[in-house]
Amino acid sequence: MIIIGVDPGTRFTGFGIIEFSNNQYHVIDYGVIRPPTNAPLEKRYLAIFTSLEHLIEKYKPSCLAVETQFVGKNVQSAIKLGMARGVSILAAARAQLEVKEYSPTMTKKAVVGRGHASKEQVIKMIQILLNIDQEIKEDAADALAIALCHIHSLNLNTKIQAIKGR
Amino acid sequence: MIIIGVDPGTRFTGFGIIEFSNNQYHVIDYGVIRPPTNAPLEKRYLAIFTSLEHLIEKYKPSCLAVETQFVGKNVQSAIKLGMARGVSILAAARAQLEVKEYSPTMTKKAVVGRGHASKEQVIKMIQILLNIDQEIKEDAADALAIALCHIHSLNLNTKIQAIKGR
Repeated sequence: MIIIGVDPGTRFTGFGIIEFSNNQYHVIDYGVIRPPTNAPLEKRYLAIFTSLEHLIEKYKPSCLAVETQFVGKNVQSAIKLGMARGVSILAAARAQLEVKEYSPTMTKKAVVGRGHASKEQVIKMIQILLNIDQEIKEDAADALAIALCHIHSLNLNTKIQAIKGR
Repeated sequence: MIIIGVDPGTRFTGFGIIEFSNNQYHVIDYGVIRPPTNAPLEKRYLAIFTSLEHLIEKYKPSCLAVETQFVGKNVQSAIKLGMARGVSILAAARAQLEVKEYSPTMTKKAVVGRGHASKEQVIKMIQILLNIDQEIKEDAADALAIALCHIHSLNLNTKIQAIKGR
């Protein structure tokens, strides 16, 4: 099973693609989509959408995982984030992927073990968990963390099913 | 020139299509897109996107006009609105339409003459300005108001150009 995690943003949209099989996971690809900053807003959303469509077509994930909450208080930033998130979810819906949403707290808990981890801790843990030697951008690390969070929840569900099935 | 005005929302997305030529405008179509309420969020955004794509294909507008601001203070509502707006703008960007954004104050001012008009006043004025006899839903009226706001700004620009050209 292949999962694409997405950390949407108007300036930087992180993505992380992880394969999960036989109770093991490994990273396939990750990076940051950077729409041209001088382009009008609609062109920037189109760039995010098109890039995600390409990634979905290339790696054929079955699920897109995305963060559900916004931790800030600025309404205008929330709208911009919502626009980038809407476009990301749409790319998944058009390719008939399952869409799963996780809160930042759940994501951090799944990766670092606690809900209030720092950005640096998330990056460090992602590098360790996925054997990534080189430097990794925050948005890409967050996207990989969201994908991992989804894998953890799948794994947990499997364990619960196994216990129930005993 | 044909303009599509959109009032995006997760539950109701209003649309209004107006033709503007020879300094006159008339309504072509209007209504409300209602994605299935029991569908998962991504299917609802897909429904909004697909409906707008169909309308754009059918009426071939050259511009999509949308409201830019959010008047509430709730961050979670702002994200949802942003998602619906992102998906609407994307439908325009994919069809290479121009996208124009107007604040609710500008929209109300263009239709009612003042920025703090009530919803009922907007509906009433839209019915009068566009010769609409039947009842009209708030979201459709708002979408028509946004399209009219764009026409007013075009008209104003033409007049300014005419004065400058004297």
